[in-house]
Amino acid sequence: MFGTSMGHHLVLASYGESHGKCIGALLSGCPAGLPLDKSDIQTMLDRRRPGQSALSSQRKEGDEVQILSGVYRGRTTGAPITMIIWNTDHRSKDYTYMEHTPRPGHSDYPASVKYKGYNDHRGGGIFSGRLTATQVMGGAIARKLLSDTLDIQIHSYTVSIGDIDADIKPDMINADTIYANNVRCPDHVAADSMKKTILEARRRGDSLGGIIESVATGMPVGLGGPIYNSLESDIAAAMFSIPSVKGVEFGSGFAGSRMSGSTNNDSYMVQNRRIRTRTNNAGGILGGLSTGMPLVLRAAFKPASSISIIQDTVDTETMKSATLQVRGRHDPCVVPRAPPVVDSMVALVLADHAIASGMIGPVIE
Amino acid sequence: MFGTSMGHHLVLASYGESHGKCIGALLSGCPAGLPLDKSDIQTMLDRRRPGQSALSSQRKEGDEVQILSGVYRGRTTGAPITMIIWNTDHRSKDYTYMEHTPRPGHSDYPASVKYKGYNDHRGGGIFSGRLTATQVMGGAIARKLLSDTLDIQIHSYTVSIGDIDADIKPDMINADTIYANNVRCPDHVAADSMKKTILEARRRGDSLGGIIESVATGMPVGLGGPIYNSLESDIAAAMFSIPSVKGVEFGSGFAGSRMSGSTNNDSYMVQNRRIRTRTNNAGGILGGLSTGMPLVLRAAFKPASSISIIQDTVDTETMKSATLQVRGRHDPCVVPRAPPVVDSMVALVLADHAIASGMIGPVIE
Amino acid sequence: MFGTSMGHHLVLASYGESHGKCIGALLSGCPAGLPLDKSDIQTMLDRRRPGQSALSSQRKEGDEVQILSGVYRGRTTGAPITMIIWNTDHRSKDYTYMEHTPRPGHSDYPASVKYKGYNDHRGGGIFSGRLTATQVMGGAIARKLLSDTLDIQIHSYTVSIGDIDADIKPDMINADTIYANNVRCPDHVAADSMKKTILEARRRGDSLGGIIESVATGMPVGLGGPIYNSLESDIAAAMFSIPSVKGVEFGSGFAGSRMSGSTNNDSYMVQNRRIRTRTNNAGGILGGLSTGMPLVLRAAFKPASSISIIQDTVDTETMKSATLQVRGRHDPCVVPRAPPVVDSMVALVLADHAIASGMIGPVIE
Amino acid sequence: MFGTSMGHHLVLASYGESHGKCIGALLSGCPAGLPLDKSDIQTMLDRRRPGQSALSSQRKEGDEVQILSGVYRGRTTGAPITMIIWNTDHRSKDYTYMEHTPRPGHSDYPASVKYKGYNDHRGGGIFSGRLTATQVMGGAIARKLLSDTLDIQIHSYTVSIGDIDADIKPDMINADTIYANNVRCPDHVAADSMKKTILEARRRGDSLGGIIESVATGMPVGLGGPIYNSLESDIAAAMFSIPSVKGVEFGSGFAGSRMSGSTNNDSYMVQNRRIRTRTNNAGGILGGLSTGMPLVLRAAFKPASSISIIQDTVDTETMKSATLQVRGRHDPCVVPRAPPVVDSMVALVLADHAIASGMIGPVIE
Repeated sequence: MFGTSMGHHLVLASYGESHGKCIGALLSGCPAGLPLDKSDIQTMLDRRRPGQSALSSQRKEGDEVQILSGVYRGRTTGAPITMIIWNTDHRSKDYTYMEHTPRPGHSDYPASVKYKGYNDHRGGGIFSGRLTATQVMGGAIARKLLSDTLDIQIHSYTVSIGDIDADIKPDMINADTIYANNVRCPDHVAADSMKKTILEARRRGDSLGGIIESVATGMPVGLGGPIYNSLESDIAAAMFSIPSVKGVEFGSGFAGSRMSGSTNNDSYMVQNRRIRTRTNNAGGILGGLSTGMPLVLRAAFKPASSISIIQDTVDTETMKSATLQVRGRHDPCVVPRAPPVVDSMVALVLADHAIASGMIGPVIE
Repeated sequence: MFGTSMGHHLVLASYGESHGKCIGALLSGCPAGLPLDKSDIQTMLDRRRPGQSALSSQRKEGDEVQILSGVYRGRTTGAPITMIIWNTDHRSKDYTYMEHTPRPGHSDYPASVKYKGYNDHRGGGIFSGRLTATQVMGGAIARKLLSDTLDIQIHSYTVSIGDIDADIKPDMINADTIYANNVRCPDHVAADSMKKTILEARRRGDSLGGIIESVATGMPVGLGGPIYNSLESDIAAAMFSIPSVKGVEFGSGFAGSRMSGSTNNDSYMVQNRRIRTRTNNAGGILGGLSTGMPLVLRAAFKPASSISIIQDTVDTETMKSATLQVRGRHDPCVVPRAPPVVDSMVALVLADHAIASGMIGPVIE
Repeated sequence: MFGTSMGHHLVLASYGESHGKCIGALLSGCPAGLPLDKSDIQTMLDRRRPGQSALSSQRKEGDEVQILSGVYRGRTTGAPITMIIWNTDHRSKDYTYMEHTPRPGHSDYPASVKYKGYNDHRGGGIFSGRLTATQVMGGAIARKLLSDTLDIQIHSYTVSIGDIDADIKPDMINADTIYANNVRCPDHVAADSMKKTILEARRRGDSLGGIIESVATGMPVGLGGPIYNSLESDIAAAMFSIPSVKGVEFGSGFAGSRMSGSTNNDSYMVQNRRIRTRTNNAGGILGGLSTGMPLVLRAAFKPASSISIIQDTVDTETMKSATLQVRGRHDPCVVPRAPPVVDSMVALVLADHAIASGMIGPVIE
Repeated sequence: MFGTSMGHHLVLASYGESHGKCIGALLSGCPAGLPLDKSDIQTMLDRRRPGQSALSSQRKEGDEVQILSGVYRGRTTGAPITMIIWNTDHRSKDYTYMEHTPRPGHSDYPASVKYKGYNDHRGGGIFSGRLTATQVMGGAIARKLLSDTLDIQIHSYTVSIGDIDADIKPDMINADTIYANNVRCPDHVAADSMKKTILEARRRGDSLGGIIESVATGMPVGLGGPIYNSLESDIAAAMFSIPSVKGVEFGSGFAGSRMSGSTNNDSYMVQNRRIRTRTNNAGGILGGLSTGMPLVLRAAFKPASSISIIQDTVDTETMKSATLQVRGRHDPCVVPRAPPVVDSMVALVLADHAIASGMIGPVIE
């Protein structure tokens, strides 16, 4: 109701529907002068595009982005950057039969109550995971902005699928290793098991969830602010705007709540004339401010709600029990497609705060 | 940097410092006509006040709230409600020696870099946990507003301290049971163990963390909005504005990411002519919208950073190693004082969205 | 820098450039269920379209709007409504020669300094009067929303061009009379003189300004809020976001500042069991709140800056004096095309406040 | 309803009521490190304080400001700055008899409808002109910030009272000349006539309005932004948040709408290696951006609504005609007390935009 946007200075608004004409994003507040080519955005979009392997939905979308405004002579102008993807391969009839039998685990039921049936229910409309492509549109620009100006690098990757956990070593955290496999898990042994368990779930008509970890390096000290301007608040809000995310933690997170202060506190040391901490249980944020240590967070994704196993639901017109078998082409696990989305949300928040603090100025030269 | 406030319609701004003259809150957007007495706020403040038992800081603050504006003839007027607590028992000299030796786990270091030393560092200044009293000031009003108009009830309670977990049954979730003990855990057997483990940690000069769960009942369907207006986004942002919170999850949360879709999906049923779900793994939110089922979330609190065990730090002037023993009166565990704060943040977000959706009008009659 | 948008609940963002691919608008916060057809928007756009008479620019733009999102089955869905117009008849080469010789009276010079030359300067880019079409896109929806739900009707019309003043009687204020002539002045005698004076200015290569008055009837009591939420503040901000507006006044305005209180105060009376005022020097707003009397405001438009008379300027590269003759197809007077834009800005603000106050709910039924 | 505040980065919230306990302001987003003493604020407050001469209300308020937070060791800390003035000399009984007979020209009637009678009606409550002291609290800090960092100087002064116009020469525009007389008009001959006409109006129980002009020198190029971020939009919104303002114009304003483009356009020239304009009909703003020329604006103040002449009103309980004689101590003309308020609103907007554009950084050193 407040305008579907995030950010204070660098503001991303998303628009469109899963089965409408298009999806898109409007990014305002981006500094002028940033070199920007369509391919900077397309590369990240391609990483979340469906139809790339047996692990994801078979919906085939080219997902080719067009930049409609805000870029001139290859650089951002300071004016709002509008981007669009025209929907091509949607099959709305897959959804017609479900209008009055809400899918468990989806927004169908609360959305139909909230909007009294006027919402575009096809494929979830604006609530669809397809809208994460619009988050990537903005995020790709934010990521480039952070990289070009402050040399901040963000990497997100799968750390668990179902009950299979990866064992990640710091030297694995780079795009080559992450994107070397279809689950986007830099531990390639775990990745094989993850792939198998997803395919098994798919065979059963079931789905799986998982956890994505995100690390940002090159962090300056002091991004964020007190209380409501906490960097954690803004990142968490951004994470929970990704459909399917049900948990977010920073640094030692939930596990840290079981430690003692003497173990969880990160003591300070001087290294190469810079102040660092020996450990990083804080995940790079103290008091809502970045500490200069890597930002580390994890987001828990629930198993995809669209499963072909028959489920109990209710016919909202007759108010009687009903059963539902979700047809259509769905992801047995959305986690492998999520790393670029998580990258994007982290990048948007960091860039927003970097602009707020003056670390990134209004014109990039 | 964006104004230290939260909320879109019901907006809470916090002000003050731990060792300054006062702390306070300014709540704007509260509907007119709500009966409001100082005691409505004081009751909740008293639940988080320090000095109540051996489990918390021995700092003795009356924490008596005064309402400065926005209430006339016992009712809210629609104008901003300003509240204040005058600080009385602060001992700033406890902090003088630490200005250049930042406390591990605190905002000291990033704040001094961000503000180049101009911030009020005494007791953490505005970053202090003491500011949570200002969140309770606003939250107490939001909680009354929700209760009076929509009969929404919010209860937050301790579910773990260190490695001790409570076993909570639904019928335990009421204020009497929660506040019957000093750890605010409705499982009184676990509460005893929790109390012991906190006192032990205190004896060692160490600290503990824990997890608070919060449940809101009487939820309407459809609070929240798509993508960036997700109810989860706003609640999570609010939670992470509480100092020490490092993780937030809704419903099955992180555990849910290890389930299959067929297990985690909450199937629909009709009960008493209302649509409900059999399970509530969604924690009452789907697609960023409330489902009408109870809202259930958990927040992980790290162990308190102020410990009297000697820690390694750095002298930021000489850039040499140093050690630090935090003196002063600190909480060995902040969790027992946190339930009213968690209540408050949940209440503020729910009330904000209820106003946004027109469920609560501009005048209460 | 803050996101190029207006509104608190009903939020309009504009995008695009005069000589880029397109211009467009994203309206979020519009209630669901409003019947909306492309023609509802096109009708208002056609009233501001250039090329309709000798009084306006000869640039021929079809200005055909497309709705890209937020409407389904002929009604708004509650999701953001995105609209677009593809630019067709722009001649960018008209502007190439001027990149380093800023046009007097235009944004050219301050924009090139602010964005260090990275802004899209062609035709003023985002600063172009062409962007007022995007304000009409949003305004047409707001106007329909106000009319359908609260029966608020807004009419804007020309009251002066250069030194020619119209004499408007209340019964002239309707769309038929206003749009019966090309200057959009309901006093048809004055309209003839206005037309002549504009054509004369055009012949001289010069331009004229004028004043537009706007009246909203059917106003409820109490739209707006205290101090910074003043209805006048929001309307004035909206007015000054229309290029060329240099003055705004409500009711007796500047003339009222020369009256005595006993003359300017509007005394109350009861008429048809409703409280009204005998006069309306307040222009329908007191204390920032609507009084229920018609909203009356006037906006002063400066003479169009683009004139073909040779002007003095500076070459910003050589820092030497230069002269400039603005070529291209320009309006000798923008005032006749402005009434739908003024309608739009008033409508957007009133609808925003009507939503804020709960007078318009989240779903129209 | 949206939170009673102005600004995007430098955010001022006002609170309190005319006859409540206090009035105050909360300024957030002020950079850290600005030297700030209570007297910096008090000096400006003293200029608007009532009871200073026969020209203003005889209400005697010390209006002594206290700084409650955000300043430490004589400098701002980056945390919100809270300020307060305790009300002392209010006589609420002066207002009791008027609760159901709204004063013409005041917010009484629309406020009582909007808030269904729950608003604090005494002296207008939050709608009172007394709240302009809270605008000065914030404005004094913004003015010092602009002066200390960018050497921007703002001067506001009376240019007309009733039908008496001053003739202002540029060299008169300085604080000494402006504040040398009680009407704050730098043309001392006109000031004498103004004084007389105000005293005459007072004798008749009537009131007068007037016009204030404000000039800001030392302006950088490029403050503001396109369309909705127009510097004019933000300044106008700020002006109309001052009670009694009914018109705002920049540069040639309404008179400019009667000129031709060739006369009104300000042609460019080079002077001392800087680009300037020969005239300044734009009032220092083009396309919503500052041009580097002095900012010039005028605000029209209506005659004060509180007059002791008997007026017609309505008894809102019986819905019958009634008469009203406003008692209490009122200003026969508020204009002489308004210059510091206008200064403040201009300063707050300029500082907000200077922070947005990075011209003022987050820490002043």
